[in-house]
Amino acid sequence: MGGFHDRLRASWAQSGSSLCVGLDPDPTRLPDPLDGSPDAIERFCIEIVDATADLVCAFKPQIAYFAAQRAEDQLERICEHIRNEHPGVVLILDAKRGDIGSTAEQYAREAFGRYGADAVTVNPYLGTDSVAPFLAAGGGVIGLCRTSNAGGDELQMLESDGEPLYLHVARMIAERWALLGDCGLVVGATYPTELQRVRSVIGDLPILVPGVGAQGGSASEVMAAGADSTGAGLVINSSRAVLYASHGSDFAEAARAVAEATRQDCRID
Amino acid sequence: MGGFHDRLRASWAQSGSSLCVGLDPDPTRLPDPLDGSPDAIERFCIEIVDATADLVCAFKPQIAYFAAQRAEDQLERICEHIRNEHPGVVLILDAKRGDIGSTAEQYAREAFGRYGADAVTVNPYLGTDSVAPFLAAGGGVIGLCRTSNAGGDELQMLESDGEPLYLHVARMIAERWALLGDCGLVVGATYPTELQRVRSVIGDLPILVPGVGAQGGSASEVMAAGADSTGAGLVINSSRAVLYASHGSDFAEAARAVAEATRQDCRID
Repeated sequence: MGGFHDRLRASWAQSGSSLCVGLDPDPTRLPDPLDGSPDAIERFCIEIVDATADLVCAFKPQIAYFAAQRAEDQLERICEHIRNEHPGVVLILDAKRGDIGSTAEQYAREAFGRYGADAVTVNPYLGTDSVAPFLAAGGGVIGLCRTSNAGGDELQMLESDGEPLYLHVARMIAERWALLGDCGLVVGATYPTELQRVRSVIGDLPILVPGVGAQGGSASEVMAAGADSTGAGLVINSSRAVLYASHGSDFAEAARAVAEATRQDCRID
Repeated sequence: MGGFHDRLRASWAQSGSSLCVGLDPDPTRLPDPLDGSPDAIERFCIEIVDATADLVCAFKPQIAYFAAQRAEDQLERICEHIRNEHPGVVLILDAKRGDIGSTAEQYAREAFGRYGADAVTVNPYLGTDSVAPFLAAGGGVIGLCRTSNAGGDELQMLESDGEPLYLHVARMIAERWALLGDCGLVVGATYPTELQRVRSVIGDLPILVPGVGAQGGSASEVMAAGADSTGAGLVINSSRAVLYASHGSDFAEAARAVAEATRQDCRID
């Protein structure tokens, strides 16, 4: 299988793409042929996956959408489908987990054992020992660093020792977490300057960038600001713009067309 | 039903207790008569609940232990049992959720719709708009403020404007989140001085205090440092010391004995 970093590098090389498609299936927004049932969610996600797999470096299911619909079994089968049918594509479970050690062990079992993810997103607020169990389990962790939601500034921009909190988080991940295993960081797409500042302190660690497409960020600006020393280093996520490109029975085709267009802006040469 | 704060006040008054029993069922530690299957987990939790319900103000299932075992259906039934058989006891889902608005809406559906919790624990790193959907859904949120794990200091003790980050979090919860609905805070039991500092900035908001018992904190010190102006205000959690009080078939009786002893130190007069 290989670790998260190795698999991501291989996926960048094979696809030539930094694009990640996020699987956030809102049951009220599924295309017309599908009702909002857990099985319809499964079919929807699998069609999106099969229509876009050759254009992406990663898929990122957002677990909240499945948990709200009692669709954990469906999520397991979607993850299994990705691993079996598209083995070169990296699987990131977007779960933003964060808890003390004994509980983190259980969350690691959920992410890597149950869903077979290569990496899971985590929250940094509880510090290094709260993510150690994920890394000890051999999976990757991607820590929230800077988010582009309205409330993101409230804590993340607090200055300490002349630097905003999010840069302290970036250093903690690069200097402590990275000693324990394969790490990455989440930095929102709407702040290219901040993406650049984060890149300047983390070396070549991968950055997951949500917020392209429906949330308003530009993929080409992200590539310019955040690439690593090899020209790769980014996992640029688009969810809604791809998933809901059409509300008709051509939804998979339409999703592919949007993914193809977005990929133009996040091509790795 | 009533909101989280009203239900908690009624539960404090009825039980005379600040004790909360945490349901963290580790399948490798269940008492001898039970195997580690999801159904055994369900039976274990329900027996613990029934043996201790009159001694506590709240139960707090930790969702990670259920998610790791594919035991969401069992968790639903445990929550339903608590609501039906012990309707005066507050139900807190310990999930430490934290994500942007559209995803937070899904997590709110999980916590309040699926599991019927009165309140859910959340992570503050993404700011006020990330918890607004929980409060808009009418449930309570309990934000992580100060944790007693080894890595808790790494971010939480960073000073900004002369105050550690965790106090900024306390103010954010008291000044912004509390305008939107019923909030509380998580403060670890091992730092009574910090508990006092948090209490001094949040008025009478409830504080959930994990870390009593197996994690080493003292319930009477917590009561002295953290009570609100009415002498209540605390939800003092014990999980492992109660759950694993005996490994034999007397586990429920033994759990009750430990809960009864712990309750002596967290009695509300």
